[in-house]
Amino acid sequence: MPRIGTRPSGALDLISDVPGVTVGHCTIDIGQDVHTGVTVVRPIEGDVYKHKVPACAHVINGHTKSSGYIQLQELGVLETPIALTNTLCVGAVMMAQVREAIRTNPGICRITSSVNPVVCECSDAQLSDIQQLTITDEHYRAALADCRREFACGAVGAGRGMMNFGLKGGIGSASRLARAGGKTYTVGVLVLSNFGKPHQLIIDGERVGARLNPPQPAPDEKPESGSCIMIVATDAPLEYRQLHRIAVRATAGISRTGSVYGHGSGDEVIAFSTAYGIDWQPQSALREPVAFLNDTALDPEFFEATADATEQAILKAIYSAETLTGFRGKTVKSFVDAWQEKFGSFDDDAP
Amino acid sequence: MPRIGTRPSGALDLISDVPGVTVGHCTIDIGQDVHTGVTVVRPIEGDVYKHKVPACAHVINGHTKSSGYIQLQELGVLETPIALTNTLCVGAVMMAQVREAIRTNPGICRITSSVNPVVCECSDAQLSDIQQLTITDEHYRAALADCRREFACGAVGAGRGMMNFGLKGGIGSASRLARAGGKTYTVGVLVLSNFGKPHQLIIDGERVGARLNPPQPAPDEKPESGSCIMIVATDAPLEYRQLHRIAVRATAGISRTGSVYGHGSGDEVIAFSTAYGIDWQPQSALREPVAFLNDTALDPEFFEATADATEQAILKAIYSAETLTGFRGKTVKSFVDAWQEKFGSFDDDAP
Amino acid sequence: MPRIGTRPSGALDLISDVPGVTVGHCTIDIGQDVHTGVTVVRPIEGDVYKHKVPACAHVINGHTKSSGYIQLQELGVLETPIALTNTLCVGAVMMAQVREAIRTNPGICRITSSVNPVVCECSDAQLSDIQQLTITDEHYRAALADCRREFACGAVGAGRGMMNFGLKGGIGSASRLARAGGKTYTVGVLVLSNFGKPHQLIIDGERVGARLNPPQPAPDEKPESGSCIMIVATDAPLEYRQLHRIAVRATAGISRTGSVYGHGSGDEVIAFSTAYGIDWQPQSALREPVAFLNDTALDPEFFEATADATEQAILKAIYSAETLTGFRGKTVKSFVDAWQEKFGSFDDDAP
Amino acid sequence: MPRIGTRPSGALDLISDVPGVTVGHCTIDIGQDVHTGVTVVRPIEGDVYKHKVPACAHVINGHTKSSGYIQLQELGVLETPIALTNTLCVGAVMMAQVREAIRTNPGICRITSSVNPVVCECSDAQLSDIQQLTITDEHYRAALADCRREFACGAVGAGRGMMNFGLKGGIGSASRLARAGGKTYTVGVLVLSNFGKPHQLIIDGERVGARLNPPQPAPDEKPESGSCIMIVATDAPLEYRQLHRIAVRATAGISRTGSVYGHGSGDEVIAFSTAYGIDWQPQSALREPVAFLNDTALDPEFFEATADATEQAILKAIYSAETLTGFRGKTVKSFVDAWQEKFGSFDDDAP
Repeated sequence: MPRIGTRPSGALDLISDVPGVTVGHCTIDIGQDVHTGVTVVRPIEGDVYKHKVPACAHVINGHTKSSGYIQLQELGVLETPIALTNTLCVGAVMMAQVREAIRTNPGICRITSSVNPVVCECSDAQLSDIQQLTITDEHYRAALADCRREFACGAVGAGRGMMNFGLKGGIGSASRLARAGGKTYTVGVLVLSNFGKPHQLIIDGERVGARLNPPQPAPDEKPESGSCIMIVATDAPLEYRQLHRIAVRATAGISRTGSVYGHGSGDEVIAFSTAYGIDWQPQSALREPVAFLNDTALDPEFFEATADATEQAILKAIYSAETLTGFRGKTVKSFVDAWQEKFGSFDDDAP
Repeated sequence: MPRIGTRPSGALDLISDVPGVTVGHCTIDIGQDVHTGVTVVRPIEGDVYKHKVPACAHVINGHTKSSGYIQLQELGVLETPIALTNTLCVGAVMMAQVREAIRTNPGICRITSSVNPVVCECSDAQLSDIQQLTITDEHYRAALADCRREFACGAVGAGRGMMNFGLKGGIGSASRLARAGGKTYTVGVLVLSNFGKPHQLIIDGERVGARLNPPQPAPDEKPESGSCIMIVATDAPLEYRQLHRIAVRATAGISRTGSVYGHGSGDEVIAFSTAYGIDWQPQSALREPVAFLNDTALDPEFFEATADATEQAILKAIYSAETLTGFRGKTVKSFVDAWQEKFGSFDDDAP
Repeated sequence: MPRIGTRPSGALDLISDVPGVTVGHCTIDIGQDVHTGVTVVRPIEGDVYKHKVPACAHVINGHTKSSGYIQLQELGVLETPIALTNTLCVGAVMMAQVREAIRTNPGICRITSSVNPVVCECSDAQLSDIQQLTITDEHYRAALADCRREFACGAVGAGRGMMNFGLKGGIGSASRLARAGGKTYTVGVLVLSNFGKPHQLIIDGERVGARLNPPQPAPDEKPESGSCIMIVATDAPLEYRQLHRIAVRATAGISRTGSVYGHGSGDEVIAFSTAYGIDWQPQSALREPVAFLNDTALDPEFFEATADATEQAILKAIYSAETLTGFRGKTVKSFVDAWQEKFGSFDDDAP
Repeated sequence: MPRIGTRPSGALDLISDVPGVTVGHCTIDIGQDVHTGVTVVRPIEGDVYKHKVPACAHVINGHTKSSGYIQLQELGVLETPIALTNTLCVGAVMMAQVREAIRTNPGICRITSSVNPVVCECSDAQLSDIQQLTITDEHYRAALADCRREFACGAVGAGRGMMNFGLKGGIGSASRLARAGGKTYTVGVLVLSNFGKPHQLIIDGERVGARLNPPQPAPDEKPESGSCIMIVATDAPLEYRQLHRIAVRATAGISRTGSVYGHGSGDEVIAFSTAYGIDWQPQSALREPVAFLNDTALDPEFFEATADATEQAILKAIYSAETLTGFRGKTVKSFVDAWQEKFGSFDDDAP
């Protein structure tokens, strides 16, 4: 797998290089027909309802059923973990998040405010019988319980049945370091990667999709129906407006993989900072003072780190996911398998 | 109840004066503790998944868990009925909508695209034990089956446990006529009205809240935690951008009732037109030609009609809802009861 | 003039009750034909290019040529005074601002970044021969030099030729106090008020426009072509996202005066805070720490203060502006003159 | 110059392949110090004030003084040609546009509505003494008079003093064909290209900037201060919302050239359609009927055409612009000159 850009990564080259961030998967396979799951990104180790983190949402193409974005945009805080799942089960995972939030914070809607579940989705309907509406509370809780720093990428968790550019896709993650004022911060990205028409794939600048496939689709071909969820975490002290500027830069990363944000694609970014918290029951009218980075300190360090980590995370999903045969016997090949089938071997000529 | 403005209403002074629009309720009372429900607005008589209607969403204050807005904004079409319910059950109603959509369109996510459930919410936690997460598929289906032109306003359906300005609130609806080019169109509004601090209530210009209550809250008082969902329907041929302009004008209506869009309030508008449809499986690349209204024809007719119908719909919720005693024995009085208690009778001096 | 709401005002009941804010006018009358001008709002006493202030822009109806908003939204800072003038002279005032900025900061576009002139406009074409493009650098500089705490309202400065609801309009201003955490902050508003159809005017809840005029226009009447610029200042420590929440609440104020944000109206809000600054040449990557207010502290204090001060400022423009005869001999009456003409005297029955 | 993608171009591979679109330049060189200009894009042959064209604006990074966007977003129509110039002269070109509009339509602000000048800018301060504020009415009129189908790219017009990735930049243009329903439409793009840090340049996937320069800037390097204006024209019948979807896809094109939308960069897109017009003085309340493309017909044809034409247009600016020595004796090399200096010759190994 090519390495994107020249900036260093954190220790794991995962979103969890941002201190406190952990990721858990619940992978679901039921016979040949169902291949789906839940992935959870926990922004901090403690209870994020009590210690809300600053966050924002940015929508590139809004063909999506993801939930919780409007309140994110108004209040600028995340108060649940971010859950990823399949398109038709957003409601089920919202209910699971609500139940879990009430369990840990029984004052919700009684003493304290309500809770805003953030659930993002892509469609795994090509490989999984999505109409079975498989996801339950139990799957969400399993993914939550699985949260850890070192986690798997590829066809796992919510990424189990996802596709990229006609190949197998899924979960990818990467990190890059960004310096400002003598300090080094981390920008981590996790993607649920499920987008792209076969001919569009670009790997580190090379139009690989056009080598593996006919270079252009027929004029009457269906539009794309994938999606790409991009979660950006950082430990840099950024205010809401600045987090939005960071979120926008994930667009550069996904663009360099060949995406033109297909019609049916829900391409969207959530960015959050772990540098400070917003207390659930503030004892005073004023928040704790925070020293934010200047906007001039964001570029090129943070902007490039975000773009590079996003591109790398998508590649990691593509290189990690293995060939899968699913619903109605459809087989979707891994990138390596597809390359080998076309060119005989995956050797030095391969990207 | 004062009549707002001088523009004529449709026959029923309800959103259903827009031909094809119907509304259904499922009201849920379980002992003293649970008072909640579901209300459904069906934009057309047929299957809106097959015959999508042009629509947009506008958020005034985004403290909300309502779902389906992002796709509405991207594609500009409504493809399910609009469901209203309580804050914590959005996910449950999304799942009910998904199941119903699959039942009527088994090709969803297999042959056709996915489905975007539109579910709006307010919190009835003051009068109902919202943590019971009462709503199920059955309630959504009951509300859907109940859809009709003549429907009740007040503490019914999703409005069962809602509050307005410290008084009982709920469902309200009104309509106004708007003329353009020699034709008369209808603008109908339905609100799920659950907002406002007691001192803020304004009825047709009179600061009634300040008469019924202390004129100003204590400085350490909690911020508002209500919400107001406003659904605007019209039979005028408007494109997405124009529907958004209409949606924004509902803001004038809610403002004139005293709202300043409280911190915790999800104040949001969905506007749709029944004048044309977007086919689910277009047979050609081009849509049917549509002749839109010119923007200059919108003002003052459509802008005033929207503002007046919104203000009237909120008043209708306030005047229709009856006193209710609910969760933990809390009693919330109707406006008329509160007035009578304070001033002895609800006579000519009353608004 | 009725007093809006129950919250106390600052000493002057002007935007300049926010410490450091000053306002200057340059009023231009050339014979009967030209009645226009420039008004400048200086957010701080010093050079705002060097000590930028946090600010945001909110557009209610975007029929406007106002400039500088896009950069305001991206960077969240104001780096020139806010200049108000007539519609066709925005470019001239931008050039005047650029020249003044270069004069005081010769490093612009050489050593430092560029400068973003913020110029807002309404059309005074009813009373002034706007095609003469009267405004020059000199007028901007005169308004800037005139900045002071105690300034006039009514048909002065940029408000010279403006109209409200068919009556004379212009500049208005008011302030309200808001408490949080035992401290009292000030919210000040200045409006350039030039909107509304005659029948729409509402004064403190009373539909005065419908008393002074036919209650409803003919169906083929032209849409509105006014505008209302609302500048909100506060000394409360708010971040960009929170300033935007404040700006949105000016909508409640203008709505209560009868506006439905007419088709041709540029209704827009700029909100800024003087509580902290953003240094033009930061010596370190981190800004000075700031303790922001919690969002829960904004409501109802700051939201109501903004709405009330906006409504009051518009009324002050209406009550202050005197009858003027201008271009082509058109006379626009003051509110008091129009009332007296219709009802004989402006006595106790008058609002 | 590499050709981007596999889609065919129009006859000229210029924005003017869209029938009716023409482009004119006024290039200004005054000694060594001033290298600036004006470029005008005329969307139709006739008077666009009388025959307004549907259009939208999309801002990727809003560090910009460009004017006219807010009204574009509200009304969705372009009513002047699009003028491009340097950062500090936006106001001067606005005034020139206003004067020209009044000259051709003397009823402006008297009989008809006002006029919304659309002026976009990039900073040429590296090569030109921008503080001289050189641009006058005459330059705008000269560019307007110069409008033609076949026009030059490179360091001409507004592009005279612009830079790309540390190399000379300026005006670029390209077109791609897109099919829908058996018809072929054209998507044309013109860019004023003035962005990018030296190490960021990517040419058709190859990280050329990292070959020509150190691969990564020092951590304390200044943020970027360029900009990129992207104008997208099409003859496809698209409504406002769909034009916005097209505009967003220009982001994919600029991203693939290495941009991460630098902090100081005004990266913005205006998209318009020539397929139908909006009459300035509508004779009826209803517009002429238009058959729009279905959204499903946009992808991949129109989305890829937009992305590819944008990337190609930027490359054309880079390959066309010649080495220039300007203000303070600073020399900015053309891409070819820089390559030759580094590698001895611009031969087969060159991109």
